[in-house]
Amino acid sequence: MPLAEKALIAWIRRAGKSAIRGRVGRSSVLTGIGDDCAVLRLPLQHDTVVTTDFTLEGIHFRRDWHPAESVGHRALARGLSDIAAMGGQPVAAFLSLALPRDLPQAWVGRFVRGLLSLASKYGVALAGGDTAESPNGILADIIVVGTVPKGKAVLRSGARPGDRIFVTGELGGAAAAVLQMRARPKNKLNPRNYARHFYPDPRIALGRILREKGLATAMIDLSDGLSTDLAHICEESGVGAEIESAAIPLAHVGKPAHEVSLDLALHGGEDYELLFTSPRGKRVPAEIAGVAVTLIGHITRLPKILVGNLKGVYYELQPQGWEHFHR
Amino acid sequence: MPLAEKALIAWIRRAGKSAIRGRVGRSSVLTGIGDDCAVLRLPLQHDTVVTTDFTLEGIHFRRDWHPAESVGHRALARGLSDIAAMGGQPVAAFLSLALPRDLPQAWVGRFVRGLLSLASKYGVALAGGDTAESPNGILADIIVVGTVPKGKAVLRSGARPGDRIFVTGELGGAAAAVLQMRARPKNKLNPRNYARHFYPDPRIALGRILREKGLATAMIDLSDGLSTDLAHICEESGVGAEIESAAIPLAHVGKPAHEVSLDLALHGGEDYELLFTSPRGKRVPAEIAGVAVTLIGHITRLPKILVGNLKGVYYELQPQGWEHFHR
Repeated sequence: MPLAEKALIAWIRRAGKSAIRGRVGRSSVLTGIGDDCAVLRLPLQHDTVVTTDFTLEGIHFRRDWHPAESVGHRALARGLSDIAAMGGQPVAAFLSLALPRDLPQAWVGRFVRGLLSLASKYGVALAGGDTAESPNGILADIIVVGTVPKGKAVLRSGARPGDRIFVTGELGGAAAAVLQMRARPKNKLNPRNYARHFYPDPRIALGRILREKGLATAMIDLSDGLSTDLAHICEESGVGAEIESAAIPLAHVGKPAHEVSLDLALHGGEDYELLFTSPRGKRVPAEIAGVAVTLIGHITRLPKILVGNLKGVYYELQPQGWEHFHR
Repeated sequence: MPLAEKALIAWIRRAGKSAIRGRVGRSSVLTGIGDDCAVLRLPLQHDTVVTTDFTLEGIHFRRDWHPAESVGHRALARGLSDIAAMGGQPVAAFLSLALPRDLPQAWVGRFVRGLLSLASKYGVALAGGDTAESPNGILADIIVVGTVPKGKAVLRSGARPGDRIFVTGELGGAAAAVLQMRARPKNKLNPRNYARHFYPDPRIALGRILREKGLATAMIDLSDGLSTDLAHICEESGVGAEIESAAIPLAHVGKPAHEVSLDLALHGGEDYELLFTSPRGKRVPAEIAGVAVTLIGHITRLPKILVGNLKGVYYELQPQGWEHFHR
């Protein structure tokens, strides 16, 4: 077993045994790392929600562009964001991690620190996983298990004609960082000026409040980009949408800070904001859990996605599917 | 998105929507593939058990040695076996799969068939996962979620001095296949003559019966090999063990069938049999759920693992940690 793999298991076991074990809200981790399975005791009258997300070197991150802490943070944030999009409460995370034989041990330590720091912020236990040697590059798979009151999970399929469409926060900030790095590969970005890319904050409280107050008929997290994720909601709900380009909240990035282009806000992925639809007649606050909530359009019966420009001309929006660092 | 990845998602969605969705015993999959998370409704008065296992090309399998169906079968069998070792009931599986761009679509189809065939045998739903492009080689991570009656999970830590030690089935058969393939890399083995390697059968019914009848104080599945897995039980339970080499059931492999060496039975991994300890005074049947159950030794207070040979001489057993196809 390579040194880094051994150190990783030791770190995770320590983490599991100290800061973040035991009761998480009304859930508890009875047995964490060190048995064939983790054993979780989840609250009564709740459904269980589960999500898995890969984080692969060369596809989702590059070792020369991303600090190890950011890689660990983003790996977990992807899973937490999926739980947020159901209106759920995350309980436990599982990390499957395969490491190349020559990986410096310090890298693994910083990766785990980044992951655990986000986990403890949301009271999520690291309850298990798997380790292996990787034949090539760093490979991580994060599983997050959460809970949602029985029958109350907010699905993608609940949008109805007439519902209004909202997004949280600002869009396009994460993709702006990727464009910068692609354009100038040797220039390291300062993560503080591109926080939405390097340290995205999953909208867990916001998603839960929307679910509790019955404000969301359908919800998804913005991981593939607005054009693609809105298409997912429309497809699963059997509806269409009309959105106003002028209403889309453009992210501010860089130093000095500047607005991203509309194109990035429409098609850039990995912002991990929430996109949701709300029934007519329900008042949706302009800010929830400290995050701006913006009306960008409404759901239509016609199964097409149209975008209106400033002149009131509508054109059809094609989902462009954000593809990380794809060739 | 590469063709194989698209086809995979389509296959899995079809599978999720037909044969194996809906109620699984008293559990049900409310929402499977096609939302941010899967939503599971698990039975009352049960704990949730979760396990994750990598299956990586070049580490856990080789494309020239293993039929794709076998790779899919083994990937899921690893997770099911972990659930069996808790005395649990598997409910849902999740597949994270990253594929190289040039992988033939037919390979993926056969992989998924192998996996789904084992899943349907045990009534396990394929409820979600993730797909990605792999920068190098086929990468799979399987997550299995199961249930066990509240507080009844059989842990590794429950072995007490005086408990007897049992194994199920025969040992060393899976490792024998690996030795054969290593020795003659060009010679394809017939999976029928090495079934324990290519199509291992997780001991789910057996594990559940042991738990129901209170026959197991500690349990683990034999994935790393008897010497290593017995050491795990001893370490977690703070005890030692004495086993008799003559008692260890040696696997029969090949054609004509022959017995494997004691060395393979002691140190070879991936048989996915169960190793458990049973309290004195409890009668353990010689066969459970159609599988032989063999007494091989007992737990001691002295924290060492000793093996007795035919002459009654005991030597200390060093865990040798089965490492798949490691260099």
